[in-house]
Amino acid sequence: MALGVGRGESGSGVIQFIDATTGERRIIGRYLGQSQGREALSSTRGASYLTRDPRGPSLEEACPEAFARLLEAGDRIRTRLREEMQIEFTLENGQLRILDAIRVPRSARAAVRVAVALAEDGIIGRDEAVMRVDPAALPQLLHRQVDPDAPRDRLVTGIGASPGAASGRIVLTAEDAEAAAARGEACILVRRETTPEDIRGMHAAAAVLTIRGGMTSHAAVIGRGLGIPCVVGAAELEIDRRRRAVIAPGGRILHEGDLVTVDGTTGDVLMGAAPTLPATPDDSFRRLLEWADTFRDIGVRANADTPQDARLARDFAAEGIGLCRTEHMFFEGGRINLMREMIFAEDAGERRAVLDRLLPLQRADFAAIFRIMAGRPVCIRLFDPPLHEFLPSDRAALRDLAEVVSRPLSEVEARVDQLREYNPMLGLRGVRLGITVPEIYEMQAQAIFEATVEAAQDGEAVVPEVMLPLVSARREVEMLKTRIDAVASAVRSRTGVPFAYRLGVMVETPRAALRAAEIAQNAAFLSFGTNDLTQLTYGLSRDDAGRFLPAYVAQGIFPEDPFHAIDLEGVGELIRIGAERGRRGRADVVLSLCGEHAGTPRAIEFCRREGFDYVSCSPYRVPVARLSAAQAALRSRSARGG
Amino acid sequence: MALGVGRGESGSGVIQFIDATTGERRIIGRYLGQSQGREALSSTRGASYLTRDPRGPSLEEACPEAFARLLEAGDRIRTRLREEMQIEFTLENGQLRILDAIRVPRSARAAVRVAVALAEDGIIGRDEAVMRVDPAALPQLLHRQVDPDAPRDRLVTGIGASPGAASGRIVLTAEDAEAAAARGEACILVRRETTPEDIRGMHAAAAVLTIRGGMTSHAAVIGRGLGIPCVVGAAELEIDRRRRAVIAPGGRILHEGDLVTVDGTTGDVLMGAAPTLPATPDDSFRRLLEWADTFRDIGVRANADTPQDARLARDFAAEGIGLCRTEHMFFEGGRINLMREMIFAEDAGERRAVLDRLLPLQRADFAAIFRIMAGRPVCIRLFDPPLHEFLPSDRAALRDLAEVVSRPLSEVEARVDQLREYNPMLGLRGVRLGITVPEIYEMQAQAIFEATVEAAQDGEAVVPEVMLPLVSARREVEMLKTRIDAVASAVRSRTGVPFAYRLGVMVETPRAALRAAEIAQNAAFLSFGTNDLTQLTYGLSRDDAGRFLPAYVAQGIFPEDPFHAIDLEGVGELIRIGAERGRRGRADVVLSLCGEHAGTPRAIEFCRREGFDYVSCSPYRVPVARLSAAQAALRSRSARGG
Repeated sequence: MALGVGRGESGSGVIQFIDATTGERRIIGRYLGQSQGREALSSTRGASYLTRDPRGPSLEEACPEAFARLLEAGDRIRTRLREEMQIEFTLENGQLRILDAIRVPRSARAAVRVAVALAEDGIIGRDEAVMRVDPAALPQLLHRQVDPDAPRDRLVTGIGASPGAASGRIVLTAEDAEAAAARGEACILVRRETTPEDIRGMHAAAAVLTIRGGMTSHAAVIGRGLGIPCVVGAAELEIDRRRRAVIAPGGRILHEGDLVTVDGTTGDVLMGAAPTLPATPDDSFRRLLEWADTFRDIGVRANADTPQDARLARDFAAEGIGLCRTEHMFFEGGRINLMREMIFAEDAGERRAVLDRLLPLQRADFAAIFRIMAGRPVCIRLFDPPLHEFLPSDRAALRDLAEVVSRPLSEVEARVDQLREYNPMLGLRGVRLGITVPEIYEMQAQAIFEATVEAAQDGEAVVPEVMLPLVSARREVEMLKTRIDAVASAVRSRTGVPFAYRLGVMVETPRAALRAAEIAQNAAFLSFGTNDLTQLTYGLSRDDAGRFLPAYVAQGIFPEDPFHAIDLEGVGELIRIGAERGRRGRADVVLSLCGEHAGTPRAIEFCRREGFDYVSCSPYRVPVARLSAAQAALRSRSARGG
Repeated sequence: MALGVGRGESGSGVIQFIDATTGERRIIGRYLGQSQGREALSSTRGASYLTRDPRGPSLEEACPEAFARLLEAGDRIRTRLREEMQIEFTLENGQLRILDAIRVPRSARAAVRVAVALAEDGIIGRDEAVMRVDPAALPQLLHRQVDPDAPRDRLVTGIGASPGAASGRIVLTAEDAEAAAARGEACILVRRETTPEDIRGMHAAAAVLTIRGGMTSHAAVIGRGLGIPCVVGAAELEIDRRRRAVIAPGGRILHEGDLVTVDGTTGDVLMGAAPTLPATPDDSFRRLLEWADTFRDIGVRANADTPQDARLARDFAAEGIGLCRTEHMFFEGGRINLMREMIFAEDAGERRAVLDRLLPLQRADFAAIFRIMAGRPVCIRLFDPPLHEFLPSDRAALRDLAEVVSRPLSEVEARVDQLREYNPMLGLRGVRLGITVPEIYEMQAQAIFEATVEAAQDGEAVVPEVMLPLVSARREVEMLKTRIDAVASAVRSRTGVPFAYRLGVMVETPRAALRAAEIAQNAAFLSFGTNDLTQLTYGLSRDDAGRFLPAYVAQGIFPEDPFHAIDLEGVGELIRIGAERGRRGRADVVLSLCGEHAGTPRAIEFCRREGFDYVSCSPYRVPVARLSAAQAALRSRSARGG
């Protein structure tokens, strides 16, 4: 392509029309007079600017006609190739010649901006804009990230359990974290593993780093809940309590107060304060997701345990809450002591009395969430973890506990010991606890229904969804349905306010999937919990897998970590069986998938194909899910020859 | 019925022709002269004997004709009613009249003897004799039992984990158990839970009682292996170490040295030395089982881990060993210290060096078992448990361990800590250990193949079956098949002795069942391990279920304890899917079921219906399995109108 632009000027240059990092439209490039061919690409010495610039000469000034032609050519190329291109050109005696045009490599942020701009300019369709952005790239737009171009002094790599990056000074106890926060200092809480007693310290920390644990360990779950970066399972680290130091591989010693950076997206822990980039969800991002929603044909809800989470969910346009885990509500502030009193209650009456003090707190949680979600559906999972998660393990904490519950230390130790389990994952938790200690679920149901009545009185009709965890037999559902129905009736007759609710089941044991037909007869919805279902299908504890799973994946024994990429061959097969049988038991049963996998493109495509109603993922995954779901719908449309 | 027998004599009596406890043929009953109707039944005062007796008058002497007629009538009734009956009769002026005949209630032992005698007398067929005995009654013939007629002073009830009854003096440590045995005193070892360090004490004890644990806990497994009675999970007991006492419900205190009786059949622990009845497998028992074998159409093998077990298996006519768990071989004697050295090895070379010292011990185990089984198939499951089961937990034992492995205590503690798992059941064990620490399986394969060569040189052709535990993916099998094939080739070429072996998979994760088609492509057999499969299908740890499972069963939430009665609806469904897919992957794949359930009538009927090749249960369950299998075959024959 050669365009006459006048006489005299010769040289070569390169031009692009966007900032590759931000995606903003601006002219970037250079021009090298007296050069030939691609010289300007390899040398910046003696180059001039393209646009008018106070710092030196520019092509725009020197040769305005050639410059104008260049811009026209750029526009034409963008339109014809339907892409932002970097263009190499020469001027030969004023004649513009385009040598080459290559796609501008770009950041995730710029990719979104470019796709949206091309669609807004009518160059590509909105569907194509939606298809052009890799959903996996979105999370980095939602969290502060370690600058990918900065050098990384990596201390160790663990499991990135809560995305984002933060720098701060090392502290080794929750108390020190609180003290640092009080001084206004950013700190990184480093623990072997965290327990409920560390909650306040975690609130105070800029990030959390643990030596043990996996994606569902206490630190990981709470870290994601708090929205702070978290790396867990950094097994190569050692804490040297005596020296108040952390020992990293290679014998590097970090003392309390030393600066480190936790990258919860990649799992890296870096020496010092690494440069970071801020979160950047902009207008283009929002627009792209709005377009995605017009193509999407499967619902996207968020997992949200707190009013903060609910607000995030709403901000990310989740269509509701698909999983509100109620147990985290019991870890906070003074509530954990109430939980402990309940655990030490002598009988059902005393237990009920303690729960009566938890009731208004739970009700307020639910009322706040209903208010934020403004009529969108909220699915509340009743209490799930084993009770011993609420009890401390070290001696000092046990002594404190003995004081809180006014019992001799020996008795407290005996109770803690009695509640300890060989395999807590497979023990007395979920619906099993709901059945054997009925006061807990009764209190929760009452709190949910009273909050529903409050919402109704504020003019907001809420139909709460109540979900039972760890179900393995039909009778569990029948029995609890009877009890929860009774609580609903009591609240209705006491308040005179009519309301409806829906009872459903979290399908997370293989048996619940196999028996879904009969379970669905008492369940308006079935939500497949892929975390536990993966653990049970493989016989693999997520918290313990760290010691061999990486080797398994490296050797190709498992193609991928099944906790990150859903295993469609095994777990997916069980879900398919469960969905099919669930529908056989109740034709209009609502099917969904919740858990870590629900925000991944593979799981979303699978759910869409199986005709699920929605997926529910953590709030920060909602944009990924919305985009992935739209892409799955578009792909299937084009596969059908649409 | 009235028979003239002469003049004069009048009275009434009752007669039967067997001893209801032993089943022996002898005349039992009494006769009351001058009585009418049923008087002789309600009163013994003034009654005379039926047969000649030095202690007093008898009907046989007083009225020989009437007595002879009575015997004839008895014979006729037995033949006509095809059963041992208790007969009420009167004499009216010498006229014999039969008033009533009821089935003699009888012990399990007598039931076997009666059924066999009726068949041998041609009164019933052998098939009917086989159908008449309740398989569930057989175990009490194989173990010493607490006399059911003696009064029971029950201290507490736990889980009957290893059948039989034994009395002895309480000891609280393994050392004390050894000391008592050295003095020739029977003792009952009472522990919170047992660990590998207790093995020698368990060998020395007459029975074991633990406060924690379930049917698969260390105490239970070892107890069954040793054939000593064992009750576990007696959670209501407390050990008061200071007072060297055990506190039972109701505040009863038992000191060391107090006598108790452990009933491992029922789970009862009784005060004092309760009267017991000896084991009574007699000729009738053997004959009945021989007949059963002629009807049976599914194989019965035994689970046997040691030469002793193998001998039992052979004595009970098991057709082979279906499950030889190799890990128990590592707990015994000095071997556990070798295991510990291996765990503390610095690298693969050092590990291999320790394993080389275990190799001859393993080889000798296998050679002994092959010799006992004399060509019958032996299926050896490679190492399964997590390594931390071989490490102690209390401080004193850790200090000893530090000495054994010549490492500082702090290092030993760190390693123990590092190996600890949140959910050991779902952790680094089975094939996962086999893949990540390859030296263990390589040593085991070598020991198996060298023992095979030894057997071949003794003229016994053994085709060992090597089974991989906890498989969840095809690649695990492929990878280990390659490694084990290599070991076999090396042994063949080193010894010059050709031999074959068969590699198979223990299907105990839901995923292995779901992926059975592809797994079977590298597996000559699939053995469904219902213990772990039940745990994973329900998400239920057998060791932890004790705290709520009894309540669940009592409330009818689970119809039965799924660890005792196989859950056909859930677990069975997965097995069906696995069997069907396994056959699809390899038409001639051998299918079997092993684990606690395999000896129950319900599981056997299920396996037979699904076309399984065999079941494998603990040696003492083999008779139950043989009888149940025969009954299932006979029932299905009669259902088909045979």
